Amino acid sequence: METVSTARAHGGTQGVYRHRSAATGTDMTFSVYVPDHAPGATLPVVWYLSGLTCTHANVTDKGEYRAACARHGLIFVAPDTSPRGDEVPDEDRWDFAKGAGFYVDATMPPWSTHYRMWSYVTEELPALVAAEFPVDAARQSIMGHSMGGHGALTAALRHPGRYRAVSAFAPIVAPTQVPWGEALDRYLGDDVAAQRRHDAVALIEDGARVTELLVDQGEADGFLAEQLRPELLAQACAAAGIPLELRMRAGYDHSYLFVSTFMGEQLDWHAARLKR
Amino acid sequence: METVSTARAHGGTQGVYRHRSAATGTDMTFSVYVPDHAPGATLPVVWYLSGLTCTHANVTDKGEYRAACARHGLIFVAPDTSPRGDEVPDEDRWDFAKGAGFYVDATMPPWSTHYRMWSYVTEELPALVAAEFPVDAARQSIMGHSMGGHGALTAALRHPGRYRAVSAFAPIVAPTQVPWGEALDRYLGDDVAAQRRHDAVALIEDGARVTELLVDQGEADGFLAEQLRPELLAQACAAAGIPLELRMRAGYDHSYLFVSTFMGEQLDWHAARLKR
Repeated sequence: METVSTARAHGGTQGVYRHRSAATGTDMTFSVYVPDHAPGATLPVVWYLSGLTCTHANVTDKGEYRAACARHGLIFVAPDTSPRGDEVPDEDRWDFAKGAGFYVDATMPPWSTHYRMWSYVTEELPALVAAEFPVDAARQSIMGHSMGGHGALTAALRHPGRYRAVSAFAPIVAPTQVPWGEALDRYLGDDVAAQRRHDAVALIEDGARVTELLVDQGEADGFLAEQLRPELLAQACAAAGIPLELRMRAGYDHSYLFVSTFMGEQLDWHAARLKR
Repeated sequence: METVSTARAHGGTQGVYRHRSAATGTDMTFSVYVPDHAPGATLPVVWYLSGLTCTHANVTDKGEYRAACARHGLIFVAPDTSPRGDEVPDEDRWDFAKGAGFYVDATMPPWSTHYRMWSYVTEELPALVAAEFPVDAARQSIMGHSMGGHGALTAALRHPGRYRAVSAFAPIVAPTQVPWGEALDRYLGDDVAAQRRHDAVALIEDGARVTELLVDQGEADGFLAEQLRPELLAQACAAAGIPLELRMRAGYDHSYLFVSTFMGEQLDWHAARLKR
């Protein structure tokens, strides 16, 4: 692992790091914020998965998470959203391929060689971060925005007991039912079972469970009605008996102005569960 | 004035606006954050002047000012740092010309036609903002970063009574004594009196006064010893009897990770003075 940059921020260290990923077969860049802590201490870790078009940098620059992480003593990790590099196949669109890995291990060529973001964010990067940073691996939680909300929900639903909290900002909750989910067709082919394992609503319908869920959703989000459809998550949670706190936020859009506004509240909620 | 974008953020509205500037003879873009307020109410306004290479967007994206402005009911205005456009003369360097207007009205050709940022930020934009936004013009304050700290200090020193508070992050305090100040030679020529009117330390030496000053400065700032030299400001303030709170911040650099860390504290300090 190579250090790209570190700087002091909000009483801690904001770093950016790069490493060669076995999962994606590419270099990958991610950011980690570590609050000051006693020598030898370990801290809970919050995973943040980003949305379409983003790299680690969007939330690192605009997420306004550092003050709350410093206050609560939380490490905050932000991976990229896809493999990068000239050797990685791409298309001239913003909602598929580079910047749009959808947190799956692609099985369809040409995507299957590098687009293995599921293994990357749920296995390889956690192992690296546990080895390189002072994390308490028994106290992890996960959150994400939009496509990253989809990633956070599916990761938590498929790893019972791993994450003590899961929340999302304007998540894609049912990719198999919305246009953006065409990405799953292309990454995974017409394998319905595989697609359902990457669809939070389908996972809940098929029996996966988390203790509770927190979602913030802007009512002025231009993707709300067609792509996000939080009512599908609400229905699935109600049927499954999963407590869902769905906070509809009047006037808020899909941008980091929305995410940063509610980041502190979500981190407060995570901290309460990580410190129990 | 044209609205480029608006979005809800932290219980208020973050806007970006564009207008034709008479001062610079170009289109100018700036951002304004307006917290929610009672109909007909007016709010204090904080002016934020940015540093070298920046536009309005750097602090708008990375400054983390909105939570404190919403809490205190402060409007926050962020202008650009120079005129822009194909007709504006430029050079292939980052510390002069575009992105580096140094908050002066240039008198030397070819800069004198468009580089009139002093008139822009102290006269034209305040009039526009007062006309278009719910500001209480009797309650203004000013802050800035690096070159923008220079702008904030000189604007306050030359407008006694206008700003109820002035502070800076890692300001250039004595441009006539440091390499970056070569910009003043080129914008203003060898007119020593004119240059001293754009040098905070020289202004204080020449009799200009403010009630008090607050400065945050990172000790790991790579520009500290050669370009920023806060000790010169401390000496001038001590000789003039101006109370200066100079907060040296161990480990912090010159970036927005530094600015955003102490933005809330500076805004708390402004709010206390704006609400007296």
